[in-house]
Amino acid sequence: MDIHDLTRQLFVKNDSKIVMYVADGLGGLPQHPGGKTELETANTPNLDKLAKEGVCGGSIPVALGIAPGSGPGHLGLFGYDPVKYLIGRGALEATGIGFKLEKGDVAIRANFCTIDASGNITDRRAGRIPTEESAPLAIKLREVKIPNVQVFVEPVKEHRFVIVLRGTGPNQGKLGDFVHDTDPQVTGVPPLEAKAGNHESEPTAKILNEFIRQAKELLKGQPKANCATLRGVASKPHLPSYEEVYGLRAAAIAVYPMYKGLAQLVGMDVIGQAKTLDEQMEVLKENWSKYDFFFIHFKYTDSTGEDGDFDAKVRRTEEYDAAVPKIMALKPDVFIATGDHSTPSMLKSHSWHPVPTLLWSKHCRTDACEKFGEADCLRGGLGQFEAKHLMTLALANAGRLGKYGA
Amino acid sequence: MDIHDLTRQLFVKNDSKIVMYVADGLGGLPQHPGGKTELETANTPNLDKLAKEGVCGGSIPVALGIAPGSGPGHLGLFGYDPVKYLIGRGALEATGIGFKLEKGDVAIRANFCTIDASGNITDRRAGRIPTEESAPLAIKLREVKIPNVQVFVEPVKEHRFVIVLRGTGPNQGKLGDFVHDTDPQVTGVPPLEAKAGNHESEPTAKILNEFIRQAKELLKGQPKANCATLRGVASKPHLPSYEEVYGLRAAAIAVYPMYKGLAQLVGMDVIGQAKTLDEQMEVLKENWSKYDFFFIHFKYTDSTGEDGDFDAKVRRTEEYDAAVPKIMALKPDVFIATGDHSTPSMLKSHSWHPVPTLLWSKHCRTDACEKFGEADCLRGGLGQFEAKHLMTLALANAGRLGKYGA
Repeated sequence: MDIHDLTRQLFVKNDSKIVMYVADGLGGLPQHPGGKTELETANTPNLDKLAKEGVCGGSIPVALGIAPGSGPGHLGLFGYDPVKYLIGRGALEATGIGFKLEKGDVAIRANFCTIDASGNITDRRAGRIPTEESAPLAIKLREVKIPNVQVFVEPVKEHRFVIVLRGTGPNQGKLGDFVHDTDPQVTGVPPLEAKAGNHESEPTAKILNEFIRQAKELLKGQPKANCATLRGVASKPHLPSYEEVYGLRAAAIAVYPMYKGLAQLVGMDVIGQAKTLDEQMEVLKENWSKYDFFFIHFKYTDSTGEDGDFDAKVRRTEEYDAAVPKIMALKPDVFIATGDHSTPSMLKSHSWHPVPTLLWSKHCRTDACEKFGEADCLRGGLGQFEAKHLMTLALANAGRLGKYGA
Repeated sequence: MDIHDLTRQLFVKNDSKIVMYVADGLGGLPQHPGGKTELETANTPNLDKLAKEGVCGGSIPVALGIAPGSGPGHLGLFGYDPVKYLIGRGALEATGIGFKLEKGDVAIRANFCTIDASGNITDRRAGRIPTEESAPLAIKLREVKIPNVQVFVEPVKEHRFVIVLRGTGPNQGKLGDFVHDTDPQVTGVPPLEAKAGNHESEPTAKILNEFIRQAKELLKGQPKANCATLRGVASKPHLPSYEEVYGLRAAAIAVYPMYKGLAQLVGMDVIGQAKTLDEQMEVLKENWSKYDFFFIHFKYTDSTGEDGDFDAKVRRTEEYDAAVPKIMALKPDVFIATGDHSTPSMLKSHSWHPVPTLLWSKHCRTDACEKFGEADCLRGGLGQFEAKHLMTLALANAGRLGKYGA
């Protein structure tokens, strides 16, 4: 079942407000057997109060045992089946640097490399050339001109950059994205030709080979990076919009480009220029009357987990908690606190563990949870559920879903 | 979603060891309302300790309310969707007697029957002829010769035997398995002709009719059983291997042919000749370095449940527990104790009740369970989950799954 087949026919509009407040990588693990997790260690009086009044549970981002990246993690929270809607690598990379993909765009992750006089690769990553040297080279590649295609080139970091192809004229909406990677994975041989995996992608492969031909001309004589390989060719994924599937005017308030980009892919407006959580809360307040749904993203519970810094994650969790009163002062009808996945500091990576989740509304059926933490959530009224069901619960609690069937 | 589409692309290899220790029919019910189940009555200090350190839950073999046979029960534990991968009756019967099916083999369950001079059935089960009389007759049927097919005939029990057809020459890999049963379900009429349900199965039907023709010749004059009917024609199922979907070198340590056969169907090596649990543990120890994954099968929690003997099931559960330290002494990275289904002694049969399951690893998120039993598992951190997700959890806990999406 695609949940959107239900929500599409059942949603109704009203004046309610829903806030989804996401602490990236929220779930954790104890430092020592029998100990408390980061969230359980943190002093979170605001979330605890809402956990007591609301209903809690454990969100399974994709499926039991599967640790997701940011893409599938957020798509799940947004209610999109993260297995059905996979965002291709190129499209995610473009999204992650804030490039606003349009329908029909094909995005490619590219690596600068170094080739010798015979065209054989001597360094697949161009000696991990520093960003301040690689960015000007990427910008130079904007000089590539190919008929019937608009070519965008964006620097990323070190040897990495992004190419986006937007077909024009006869190529408009006609560029397939099934093109094999050109990185031969070894040195001493030339980069592979771009090869199409299906008929529709043959023009794309041809364009990419022409891109590389011109890129080599433009980079001729550059000591560190004089060629490039291409990976993860992928179209902008087709994700039906929040407006279409939920009838929601939705806004995203995020600091990092990746989360802004993911929100944009499902049709949210990215609002404000906030750099801090306080500024995010200001943006929320200013825009309160303009939207039905707000996605607020807080990054640092993930980054501290990735760093393996238990204490820092605890402090960041407390910072996340401290902003909650500013949200509640606006009197949302539905408030959700959750994460896109767990990032236990003891694992220093995203993990598969269910994510503590709380939903607060006047109409939720509360449970015995006394505070917001992994152990309490395990006894919660939401049970353990796949993240993709969270939006339907949010809509229901906001009075935004009609009855299914008579 | 097929979970293997995820595991196939995400698995990584490392040196970790996973042990899945299966007590057949593990789950139970109290003898009296308000009482304890067999598992809760049993003294299981070893499993209790691991339940306390690990994470517990209830495994749903197929779907809520569905009591599975051994085939679907084990396929679920092995991570194969038991609804998608149904093992046909003939193939399961052959597997159950230890016949090693090869790709393209077609297996058939056959019943000896008795016919009168006009060829009409007088007894559909040949008077439930004792095995010591039927086995020689089955062996006599090995004299059947049919061109371009190797015919195997194996005694089973009483009136039951198994036929396996292996195409040779022009028939190699060409024998379809859609052939209708030939048992007319009533007496006083002749057995039905074998009829193909599709074009590819016409040679198979023809071969089976020739088999029956020769069988009648060979059995002519036998007082008890002078003909046979055919049921459950089924090919060896195609199950992708553990190596392919999980990247695991897997071994099965079982006493009974059925479980060895099921393990073989998913590409496990069947190792050792153990007849007792102690011997199984010896085999485990001897082969510890050679495999990544071990499936250890213990039968008697099921057979005592089927007998309706609550006390005997309790004793067998204690025997199952007592062997746990031998496994843990080998320091597995992931240890799982579970069953393929419940077999409550009060029901004397397989049942649909969730199966107590514990997963122990360094990276599991533990829960409040203090001992291993149905009531504790209900509060466990794994919640109630479909058995087919257990292998994904095992791989994740063993550090053998990469992140899904970026």
